[in-house]
Order: sequence, then structure tokens, then C-alpha cells
Amino acid sequence: MLGIVEVGPRDGLQNERALLDTDAKVELISLALAAGARRIEAVSFVRPDAVPVMADAEAVMERVPRSPGVSFIGLVLNPRGYRRAVAAGIDEVNVVVPASDGFAKANQNSTTAALTAVAEEVVAEASAAGLFTTVTVATAFGCPFDGEVDPARVFAIAERAARAGAREIAVADTIGVGVPTQVRELLEGVRSAAPGVATRAHFHNTRNTGYANAVTAYEWGVGSLDSSFGGIGGCPFAPNATGNIATEDLVALLDRMGVDTGLDLDALLPIADLLSGLLGYRVPALLPRAGAFGGASRTSRT
Amino acid sequence: MLGIVEVGPRDGLQNERALLDTDAKVELISLALAAGARRIEAVSFVRPDAVPVMADAEAVMERVPRSPGVSFIGLVLNPRGYRRAVAAGIDEVNVVVPASDGFAKANQNSTTAALTAVAEEVVAEASAAGLFTTVTVATAFGCPFDGEVDPARVFAIAERAARAGAREIAVADTIGVGVPTQVRELLEGVRSAAPGVATRAHFHNTRNTGYANAVTAYEWGVGSLDSSFGGIGGCPFAPNATGNIATEDLVALLDRMGVDTGLDLDALLPIADLLSGLLGYRVPALLPRAGAFGGASRTSRT
Repeated sequence: MLGIVEVGPRDGLQNERALLDTDAKVELISLALAAGARRIEAVSFVRPDAVPVMADAEAVMERVPRSPGVSFIGLVLNPRGYRRAVAAGIDEVNVVVPASDGFAKANQNSTTAALTAVAEEVVAEASAAGLFTTVTVATAFGCPFDGEVDPARVFAIAERAARAGAREIAVADTIGVGVPTQVRELLEGVRSAAPGVATRAHFHNTRNTGYANAVTAYEWGVGSLDSSFGGIGGCPFAPNATGNIATEDLVALLDRMGVDTGLDLDALLPIADLLSGLLGYRVPALLPRAGAFGGASRTSRT
Repeated sequence: MLGIVEVGPRDGLQNERALLDTDAKVELISLALAAGARRIEAVSFVRPDAVPVMADAEAVMERVPRSPGVSFIGLVLNPRGYRRAVAAGIDEVNVVVPASDGFAKANQNSTTAALTAVAEEVVAEASAAGLFTTVTVATAFGCPFDGEVDPARVFAIAERAARAGAREIAVADTIGVGVPTQVRELLEGVRSAAPGVATRAHFHNTRNTGYANAVTAYEWGVGSLDSSFGGIGGCPFAPNATGNIATEDLVALLDRMGVDTGLDLDALLPIADLLSGLLGYRVPALLPRAGAFGGASRTSRT
């Protein structure tokens, strides 16, 4: 069993040019739920002027179908976002800290050190409130401004996040430059820095390394993987690039490896067509183009 | 060190709609050589009426620049093709045997057993002539007609090929349905069935599993990997699908893992633009779209 966090509604849509309305978002989330998604990063609580596509976060959370065993995650960057998230009724908080100062400066005019302190504050408050809290270390595999990122910077954030009470540490390849050797090194280091804390990994397929990274993360015991329906999301630093690893391609791969994700491929497949229509281009996931393979390990599911 | 066999001129172009002329093929091969390619599957010697794009195989081989340490591979299916290959001056022969009867029937109106016997004949003749000979087991990871393929069928072909004198056994994921667990199983089984014989693997990224398979093959000691400049080649059984794993994406991935391939990424990158122009669509390789990452492990090459 490997947990999959559906991040299409948040990281996916946040990096698309098209602004989907609340109806479309709720429909997409409902389809993901129907396909078996149990953790959904549905919204981010960030400045609406900076990220207009997430301005309806509260409205989305008001309308998503809630049920036991399904957890909605809200991404936040600071205590103000955290309070909005709580008021909106999210089930989990995901706080992001960039591992590189170049990215922290460009994105939030800050530093890794300052944003780590902010994350500690959010995590402490959320933990006191009994909320499951993840700290995601962004640009953990490389930074568009600083280049290579010293893994020690990632581990230092993980250690402080764990001490503050984070229940999960995610390593994120924000710009899609990671490779499997880094996955091993970062997962091992995070486990040492934050013993007993769950791990999660977030990959983009910008340069065709995302699925190799996902398989390596699974083999090295990661608790959960992020993926995005249709593989949407692009890369803000590479205009023609593909986005997050695609949920349907990841699930098909894991299915054939005998790894249960709780997700149903047949229910996932139609989402890409809907997305392509909404976004106005053919989304990057490959399975909807090539067709699922009707081999034994797949037909055994039905 | 991991050997890369450039199969763009053969498997790539053979599955593209555009028919490139001999000039274009020789130019592409020359660029691959300039980027450091040392084994190039340049042509196939098959029936010109069945595969018109390979009808100029002799003309291509007459014009490619030859130099010590560079090996040109010709794909053949039978003794007639083998004799054409020898007459054309190839350095190595690659004989293909489908592991599934459905594919053998559809492609050559034959059976795996009959084509294994044909391959033995070619291998014996080539070995007697001192030519390095590979037997490629096609549809080793799944068949578009028969579905799942019993690995025992792959191992039986490998064993007979090795006895006949094959110097290398390749496992090919002809339709891009393979996953890393299969890579391990097939590589281990082939090594047992053909001890001491070199291994090679051929992956398509049809369903986004190609690079994960390539990394797994490397980790499990494969001798060489096939890849295609630009990731061209499509899939004859999935009209919208991507093709072979792309040489430039594979090399970038391996570079950052610290694996030397002898190939120079900066020299490879411009090939995709030329190919996109020649073929009339944007080729599937992602690195030319996203841009190379200027991190330390890459800049250390220059």
C-alpha cells in the first residue's frame, strides 16, 4: 500500500494559465474522490492578488463532498493562511519552506531561515489544535536561482519541523530536476533528521525523471507520493514543460508493479479528457493517449 | 560507465510517418557521432515494400562516416537480411525474435519457435564470420495481441541465442507497458539463462514508465540501454503515443546520477530541433523544451 495525495486541484491548477471556476474545481475533486482518492490537496490559502486561481479556496472547501476517511489538505505559507485554512474547515495543513534562499527570496521575499521559523510557528499552532501537519521542503532537489541545493539544508528544515510537531515531511522537486540518487539521499537524510515522522515526496516530470523518482521513493519506503490528475501543472520556470507526475500514469505503473494505491484506473482515465477540455490543450498524462494495457495484473482488478 | 545504443535512425525513424531521405539520415547519424555515440543502430535490412523508410539501408551505410571505436548495427530478421547487412558493411547484427506468438504472427506470419530457429541460424552464421551479434527479444514485457507474456518464453529464447553464439541479449518493451519489477525479473532470468552474455534493454516511454525502467535496468547491471534522439518513434499500436526513451533526457538523468555514458549533453540538445523540423512536429524529448539544469554535476562536464 502506498498513499497517493491528489494535488491536481492545488499544485496542478495553480500553475495553469486557465482560471477554472469553483464548479469545475468541485467537479474535478468529486471525480478524484470517486476514483478512490483519500487525501486531496484541494486549495491553497495564499494572497488572492498573487495567486488569483486560488482566490475561491473558501468556496471550494464549502462545496466539496465530505466523507469519513477523506482528508482535504490546505496549503499555507504563514499563520494568516493557516487561520484561513482552519476557518475553511480543512482536515490537514501543508506548510511550504523553500530549501534555497534564491527561491525564498523570489517567491516570498524572505530566506529559508526566516520561513523555517514561520513554519515552526504554524506547525506548533496546528499541532496544538490537533491538526495533521505536513512540512514540504520546496526546491529540495535543485533551485532555479541557486542551482544545486545542499541536502543539509533540507535535513535542517526537516529536523526543526519534526521538533515543532510536524507529522509528515515532504521533499519536493519543485522544478523537476531531481534524479533517483537524490531521492535516496534525501529520504534517508530526512528519516535520520526526523525519526518516526512520515515521509512524502512530490515530483514533477519536467525532464522525464519524475516517474523514476517516484519508483525510487516507493522502493526506499516513502509513505505517500503526490501526483496530479492529467499530469497538469506545468512549471513556472519552463513555459513549455510538463507538470506534476500524472496520477493515472503513476497508478498504472504501480498497479503493474503489484503496489496497491486504493485508486481505480478505470475511474481515473476519463478525468484527462474533461481536463483537456477545461484547460484548452491536451494534458500531459500519457495513459489516456496510449490506452491502458489489458494485461493480467490490470484485468485482475475488475 | 553505461553503454548507450542510439536507435533513433532505425527504431525511431522506422515508426515515424515522415520518410526522411538518405541525406537527412546521414546528417542525424553524424550529429549523434559528434555527441559521442559509439554504437548506432543505423538501419534495418527488411523488405523495402514492408518498411519503405528503410529501403535506402545500403545507401545510408555507404555514406556514414566510419571511424575506429564506432560500431554500426544493422537489424535483421532472417538470413536474407543478414546477408544484405554484411554486404553493406555493418559492424554488428541485431536479430529480433518476438517473445509472443501473437506478435510473431502479426509481424512475420510466423511463431516464436520458428523465429527462434531462424535467429539461431543467423547468429551461427554471424558468429562464424566473427561479427558481434545481439538477439533482441521483442514484446518481452507484454504483447498488443497476447497481453501478458510469460517470462519463461523470454528466457528460453535467451538460452538458445546464447548457445548459438549471441554476444548480447536485449529485452525489448516493444509497446511500452513494462514496469521496473519486470525489468528486474527479466534481467535476472536472462543472466541465468545466458550466463556471461552481455545484456541490453530497449524501452519505450509510451506510458511514462520508460525512464523508471531504464534506471532500474542500470541498477540491476544492464550493459547497454537503447535510446532514440528526440524520443522519436511513436508506437505502431498507439497512434498518439510517444516513442523510445529520448537519448538527451536519459543522458541528463544519468549525468546527474553520476553515471558516465560518454555522451555530451550540449552536443545532443540541438538534434531535437532539427528532428522536429524534419518530422513536422515537436518531438517528445522533454529536455529541449524545459532546458538543461545548470547544476554542479552538469557544469562539471564542461
